[in-house]
Amino acid sequence: MNVAGKPMRTIWAEADGGVDIIDQTLLPHEFVTVTLATLADAAHAIKSMQVRGAPLIGAAAAYGMALAMRDDASDAMLARAADTLLATRPTAVNLRWAIEEMRRLLSPLPPAQRAARAYARAAEICDEDVAINRAIGEAGFGAIETAWRKKGRRGRIDVLTHCNAGWLATVDWGTALAPIYRAQETGIPLHVWVDETRPRNQGASLTAWELREQGVPHTVIADNAGGHLMQHGKVDLCIVGTDRTTASGDVANKIGTYLKALAAYDNKVPFYVALPSPTIDWTISDGMREIPIEERDPREVTEIAGRLPDGSVARVRLTPEDSPAANPAFDVTPARLVTGLITERGICAASREGLLSLFPERREAARA
Amino acid sequence: MNVAGKPMRTIWAEADGGVDIIDQTLLPHEFVTVTLATLADAAHAIKSMQVRGAPLIGAAAAYGMALAMRDDASDAMLARAADTLLATRPTAVNLRWAIEEMRRLLSPLPPAQRAARAYARAAEICDEDVAINRAIGEAGFGAIETAWRKKGRRGRIDVLTHCNAGWLATVDWGTALAPIYRAQETGIPLHVWVDETRPRNQGASLTAWELREQGVPHTVIADNAGGHLMQHGKVDLCIVGTDRTTASGDVANKIGTYLKALAAYDNKVPFYVALPSPTIDWTISDGMREIPIEERDPREVTEIAGRLPDGSVARVRLTPEDSPAANPAFDVTPARLVTGLITERGICAASREGLLSLFPERREAARA
Repeated sequence: MNVAGKPMRTIWAEADGGVDIIDQTLLPHEFVTVTLATLADAAHAIKSMQVRGAPLIGAAAAYGMALAMRDDASDAMLARAADTLLATRPTAVNLRWAIEEMRRLLSPLPPAQRAARAYARAAEICDEDVAINRAIGEAGFGAIETAWRKKGRRGRIDVLTHCNAGWLATVDWGTALAPIYRAQETGIPLHVWVDETRPRNQGASLTAWELREQGVPHTVIADNAGGHLMQHGKVDLCIVGTDRTTASGDVANKIGTYLKALAAYDNKVPFYVALPSPTIDWTISDGMREIPIEERDPREVTEIAGRLPDGSVARVRLTPEDSPAANPAFDVTPARLVTGLITERGICAASREGLLSLFPERREAARA
Repeated sequence: MNVAGKPMRTIWAEADGGVDIIDQTLLPHEFVTVTLATLADAAHAIKSMQVRGAPLIGAAAAYGMALAMRDDASDAMLARAADTLLATRPTAVNLRWAIEEMRRLLSPLPPAQRAARAYARAAEICDEDVAINRAIGEAGFGAIETAWRKKGRRGRIDVLTHCNAGWLATVDWGTALAPIYRAQETGIPLHVWVDETRPRNQGASLTAWELREQGVPHTVIADNAGGHLMQHGKVDLCIVGTDRTTASGDVANKIGTYLKALAAYDNKVPFYVALPSPTIDWTISDGMREIPIEERDPREVTEIAGRLPDGSVARVRLTPEDSPAANPAFDVTPARLVTGLITERGICAASREGLLSLFPERREAARA
């Protein structure tokens, strides 16, 4: 996707082996790229959320392994690099997968070959992510096209999204935003309602920023506003991402997603969830009971960062000093509220049968 | 209610005729009272939202008329005071009512008697508001007691509220919070989930502050979190306020109320709306079509005020410079999602029949 008119990915290797990323903690106020030169740099980038979003974390971890091998290709370093990276965000599924994949690949090789192979595989992991997201974009575009046809191809299509499941969360294209970027290419007039997504404000900071850079018309709204907009016919469809989807189609995503799904259902607005298939957890079925919800630092609720009039970035406190806060980070949207799951193989119903129609090879795994 | 352990109203006259208020724009970071000495002071206090909340605005306007009469009790001043105050917040129903009431009362009097009569009537208006809110507290307490009985009087009662319909919005007691304060007096163990209520954050700043001062256990949450809490059985009932309720029980309230009502309905959590009867608009029936929704300054979404680490209060920008924002201030919750309306005459169903059972004298007005 574009930054200041120039196509760019969220992570890329330089000819000298350094790995460049966008420091996402500074967005939307500053656009800064950072070069990761060592394993420690890569671990820090993941831990401090300079890179975030499951697919991008996976890619950054793969490159972290490559950086470690460039420095010291011993078995001891291979083990240490894996441990170090795994400890950064212990619950991220893609992180674990990418590290295991690199270890499996590199262990049997003689140390002299490890670094080159690691860089090559990290680049492949990035390309695979891009290909999956492009396919999600193509599939999801179908949903936008249907809405556009329904409207008699007049006016514009209004999409509401929550949090950031855009290219910043992946290597390129994004998941929930990929269909929007694809539709933009075809010339369908689009406008995106961007939930600010308290408490971390990924919508107001990241989604708004990447849509602006890509030239997609959009409007930031308080998370409270979406229901009202749907009541008044101002939303044609919702597309969100997901952190984990059960075999029965229940969807865990950023806190507040469930409220938007309820409003969409109440107002007959189609509600889609975009997901790369590795996000499907075939081993569980009841999302509400089986998906543990991370409780994050209450200071994410009581304080917020923004830009002061002098241009500097500061944190301010919003609540009384002694008022406690709670901060559940995700919620679960039951499958019954989801119109369809947008995967790299197409759109299916949010149900066991729907998912198995696209992923028949998972029938055994989903039987549990 | 209490501030630092001392009982206090939100507005009161001093012996010398000055009128004291709490400057609510500084809460929760600073507690400052301000003396209004002139009509201009009163108009400024309402316009700048040092006082806010429909009942408190009405009381402040009544005292504004008294301050004007103290200065100059002429007919010309009576007209000018009414015009000045009416222009401060043109859509507030209680504001207009209080000004008309004072004008009706003062016009026939000889100028020499006007100031004293004005102060007396303003004080009565305050007392009437307190009496209404205490009655709402008593009625709403019934709903809390029912929940407490259902729970076998074990644990605690968790109430979720949105925005601020507390004593800060009224002269004392509040509307949505009055039942909570009443329950606290009886010793029922209570805990309140406080929606921060973006974009103006009246929950995080005002509701949290007054609950803390009153010693009611509470936790501030992002507006996104309430659905998740209800899914997990952590909310026993919701109580919110309203700006306008239709004759059929549709409820206009702060943006985001509708989303919480949907979640309450989906999880079988009772959802109550507390309202003084002057808030009922007997002339309209379909809230979604007939209640105009104020669109406020988008900077309330793109910027936020808070306290810097050095103790000073500052505004910070949250969004990219060129990303537009929209800011609808209210939404309408359809009557079908409302368990009951808590009025000063008791609790009724959110329907024409329900309302007329408590207010039979309105049958003619509601026929329209």
